[in-house]
Amino acid sequence: MTPVFLSESESAALVDDELALAAAREAFLATATGSSFPVVIGHSSVPQNRFTLKSGSAGDLVGVKVGSFWPGNTALPRHSSTIVLLDPATGRLRAVVEAAAANAYRTAAADALAVETLARKDSRTLTVIGTGHQALHEVRAVSRVRPIDRVLVIGRRADAALAFAADVTAATGLPAEPVDAPAGVAAADVLVTATTAREPLFDARWVAPGTHISAMGADGPGKQELPIALYKRASLFCDLPDQSRAIGEFQHASSVPVALGAVLTGKAAGRRSDDDVTVFDSSGFALQDLTLAAALLSRSSGGAQ
Amino acid sequence: MTPVFLSESESAALVDDELALAAAREAFLATATGSSFPVVIGHSSVPQNRFTLKSGSAGDLVGVKVGSFWPGNTALPRHSSTIVLLDPATGRLRAVVEAAAANAYRTAAADALAVETLARKDSRTLTVIGTGHQALHEVRAVSRVRPIDRVLVIGRRADAALAFAADVTAATGLPAEPVDAPAGVAAADVLVTATTAREPLFDARWVAPGTHISAMGADGPGKQELPIALYKRASLFCDLPDQSRAIGEFQHASSVPVALGAVLTGKAAGRRSDDDVTVFDSSGFALQDLTLAAALLSRSSGGAQ
Repeated sequence: MTPVFLSESESAALVDDELALAAAREAFLATATGSSFPVVIGHSSVPQNRFTLKSGSAGDLVGVKVGSFWPGNTALPRHSSTIVLLDPATGRLRAVVEAAAANAYRTAAADALAVETLARKDSRTLTVIGTGHQALHEVRAVSRVRPIDRVLVIGRRADAALAFAADVTAATGLPAEPVDAPAGVAAADVLVTATTAREPLFDARWVAPGTHISAMGADGPGKQELPIALYKRASLFCDLPDQSRAIGEFQHASSVPVALGAVLTGKAAGRRSDDDVTVFDSSGFALQDLTLAAALLSRSSGGAQ
Repeated sequence: MTPVFLSESESAALVDDELALAAAREAFLATATGSSFPVVIGHSSVPQNRFTLKSGSAGDLVGVKVGSFWPGNTALPRHSSTIVLLDPATGRLRAVVEAAAANAYRTAAADALAVETLARKDSRTLTVIGTGHQALHEVRAVSRVRPIDRVLVIGRRADAALAFAADVTAATGLPAEPVDAPAGVAAADVLVTATTAREPLFDARWVAPGTHISAMGADGPGKQELPIALYKRASLFCDLPDQSRAIGEFQHASSVPVALGAVLTGKAAGRRSDDDVTVFDSSGFALQDLTLAAALLSRSSGGAQ
């Protein structure tokens, strides 16, 4: 079997929120039976240029995502991603998918899946903390799974928040406006954090009963977006409990979070009432990348793969 | 920059012992300044189908080798290898090199480099323990770096040893014959072990003064080819001391082996006398794969890369 190669421009043209959400659902369902192996964090000869290796297997998928973070990139995004799939029958190379653009969809899709699974059905106000490239993906993906009718933007810089609100409206057609943190957090039915913070972004007391929070920023030791006081009154969910407690948001939690995959398969409870505060932490796992690559390959070949 | 893809048939046609030895030398020299990151051992949904991730960086090389071992393969070799290089300037994908055939050259080249660095200059008798595909690569690579004039073969099965000896003569032109283990070990100027043994292959007392031993088989917990008693009278060398002591032959040694790269750069002593017994353990490291891939890419593009 000749390996298939999907270039960055090909995968960027193929990906959309629907494909990414379906791939995310498949990945989270597969966490029950699949395997995720230890994450490697490496670097190039320039130590700040880092890469991560996330590998796993489930069903007929086996492979690794090489994620890179080159902070000095100017012409290209700082993050990129290459997904390598092995042939489950032989171990030989099956496909290589460049997925820098698609990776942002994949990450947003995980948070959207959590919203679809855990947020109140009548969630209408989406508040986002963060005004970067990923934050826009999050808003677009989340607004597809709930009847969101306005977006509130919390950013450290007023001009960035204003520009981001305009981008949100352009991308989704939804009204969007910058707000201060206490008001934005209090008004949220769904709160998404997409920052690189290393300390809490808001006060736990601002969070209203019934809020759902999806936090995607924390993916390494020392990173943190949420106030620890929130954990006492919230139901905690994540992608991979061990990883979330090691390098994700819940490295700061004392209780063990529930795997979203277990909620999807009915093995664990999700939201318990309209007053429940639910928190989902996404630290990212290889099966998301493998199912994304397989979905892109399938779409590339007209669904025949 | 568009990524380059070298297929299995292309890399198999490009590789030879000379290219592999030069790449090995570059890799071992780079161990002093380069980085090797933790090795991941994963598996497909069929747990006996395993893969390893070895990643590293040095100079303008950064990437990962995905090695696979599918023990049920019949039409294809059980081992295969895919090397992924990132662009050091951007973190984007630079190249993918399928290297199943080339990987055997790479592994043999490390042992040949150790022979070239550590064995007596007048080494004439090469004894090999093991009669598999890799063992033939080892014999061919080692016989290029010393004036080997006969090859002795030790195998568990007499018919396999006889057939292997014929293969050696066909591949190298050297006379080759099966021998029993005590005679073969005692006669060796250079002894190469290429097995999947989990216990010593010979008695330390059979080893004559001045012998050099290159052991390539041990690459995981519990694997062992050499008798522990040998370590007391031998000078110990390896590729990566930490890895060799964790998963290589020297997981069974009490003293710390010397990195071959340190001998190559003159920072550590190699063989001290014609009576010294030198032992080199190869557990394999990513820089070997990265330099191999770069050499194949360079040859593929006529040296312009």
